[in-house]
Amino acid sequence: MSDLPKSVRINEEGPREGFQIEKGPISTARKVELIDALSETGLKQIQVVSFVSPKAVPQMADAEEVVAGFKRKPGVRYTALWLNEKGLVRALATKRLDIEGSLSLTASEKFLKRNQNRTLAENVQAQHSIVGMYKEHGVPVDRGSIMAAFGCNFEGDIAVTTLLEIIQEMLEIAEQHQIKIKTISLADTMAWATPASIKRVVGAVRERFPELRINLHLHDTRGMGIANAYAGLEMGVASFDAAVAGLGGCPFAAHAGAAGNVCTEDLVFMCDEMGIETGVDLEKLIEAARLAEDIVGHPLPGSVMKGGSLKRLRTAAGVH
Amino acid sequence: MSDLPKSVRINEEGPREGFQIEKGPISTARKVELIDALSETGLKQIQVVSFVSPKAVPQMADAEEVVAGFKRKPGVRYTALWLNEKGLVRALATKRLDIEGSLSLTASEKFLKRNQNRTLAENVQAQHSIVGMYKEHGVPVDRGSIMAAFGCNFEGDIAVTTLLEIIQEMLEIAEQHQIKIKTISLADTMAWATPASIKRVVGAVRERFPELRINLHLHDTRGMGIANAYAGLEMGVASFDAAVAGLGGCPFAAHAGAAGNVCTEDLVFMCDEMGIETGVDLEKLIEAARLAEDIVGHPLPGSVMKGGSLKRLRTAAGVH
Repeated sequence: MSDLPKSVRINEEGPREGFQIEKGPISTARKVELIDALSETGLKQIQVVSFVSPKAVPQMADAEEVVAGFKRKPGVRYTALWLNEKGLVRALATKRLDIEGSLSLTASEKFLKRNQNRTLAENVQAQHSIVGMYKEHGVPVDRGSIMAAFGCNFEGDIAVTTLLEIIQEMLEIAEQHQIKIKTISLADTMAWATPASIKRVVGAVRERFPELRINLHLHDTRGMGIANAYAGLEMGVASFDAAVAGLGGCPFAAHAGAAGNVCTEDLVFMCDEMGIETGVDLEKLIEAARLAEDIVGHPLPGSVMKGGSLKRLRTAAGVH
Repeated sequence: MSDLPKSVRINEEGPREGFQIEKGPISTARKVELIDALSETGLKQIQVVSFVSPKAVPQMADAEEVVAGFKRKPGVRYTALWLNEKGLVRALATKRLDIEGSLSLTASEKFLKRNQNRTLAENVQAQHSIVGMYKEHGVPVDRGSIMAAFGCNFEGDIAVTTLLEIIQEMLEIAEQHQIKIKTISLADTMAWATPASIKRVVGAVRERFPELRINLHLHDTRGMGIANAYAGLEMGVASFDAAVAGLGGCPFAAHAGAAGNVCTEDLVFMCDEMGIETGVDLEKLIEAARLAEDIVGHPLPGSVMKGGSLKRLRTAAGVH
């Protein structure tokens, strides 16, 4: 009936996505508290901070302190985001992060213009410099991401052929530098995807580039996040970005209703119930989601943190 | 790749589900305002009130006034809920509603005991009396619903074989009274379903009872509502209950986090974007959802009402 994977990898992005977008100040200690709680859930990768301009994003001004503060749990990768060499150097200087580079192209020229003030050609050129930067710092690169892969608020729908060309372009950039992209992350940056387009696009990418591992980065602005993740699972996708409690949102999408990434515990719940291994303890993750809500001081969109898991109910009902 | 229907029927339950659960008082005029707004969206069926004890549910004490107040739009069916003959008589007396009877069984004996203080056998017996009541009042019956079809907070998972037996039992009750059940509504009353169980259960019901039309009634307590609806669509289900803006919730589920039905405009958005006809004007429906939020005076869970449709963005981007 479908091609559900046996297990999935979930990359937690809540701390970085969430703390970056919150308006109120959040203390370094509380950021560390959430990261430490997430480390105990079984998640294998947590994006903890971004190293960006403290003027542009004052919420991330304490990135170094956050990174110095959390307990590194063996088996967990702790990642960060940066937008330029200055950010990368800051990340490397902490000596406490799992640093890996990635290339990034955008499927929509209009979005790119608005977001980074670059043309597609300029962005391709920029990737060559970025590979150079990573090589210079000895940072491995085996991942690429495509923003606005499913549609763009400023350009409309993105044709699958356009997306395939952009992925091809990325692979060629990598090849010119003797590096190999193993994972491609398709980002539904502005929440244009539906389960049908997820299937269509993932199917086309897999057919054209069967050697690439596909990751999905799904925003939940139009409530399709979990349904889109399910469609991805049905296509055999086994890697997802997610944010605990549904923390976060995209400050660049110029969109009042922009929601965060698909909610981690809702995704874990769905996988658990469908027999797909995540390695994550749902009960602990729900506790972390409630902690996130306590830290930001307002309701967050996650559902399972409010509705509860079924495990407790099964136990109470005397069944397993 | 799947068995998506060409068109779906959406039964709007927001006014009844929503107004019933809200704690604050809502004026009759504002209830009527929402029903009238929904009538203009293209929805073909709207459940407007319940005729229940005003002592038990004071929010519905003005049911007759609400029914007297809205404008009947040709082509729209206006339905109501009742739990006994007294309620049915009140509904009939309005002479402004589309009255049809339905049978109701519950897949979980423990839930039935808690909710209605009946055993399964007593509930079967009660259905015979209910058919008699409908016959006496000349009310047609061609629909049945199964509560807790996918799982129960008090009993745990519901075996598919149990569900099939209960549907069989319902068909036999109907047969004994020379009536024919054409539509069976599977209600995920306590939000136990996942896309995988929707597929498994719908597949089993369809295989065993190919002549029955299947309707899904999906609560969103664990964030699976839209994903479950998508799984239903993939199985060819073409009839769904839904609540505008995600109004409502189940007061009987003894569950703090119980959310309402799947959100109508999010469901319409998904269908629109996947090329499935709903007959509903999404922009008008989004306006109605915002009106619902204004009426209840607090945020409601719908996403597309916040994130907006893609149509406006496509128009702005100069594409179609």
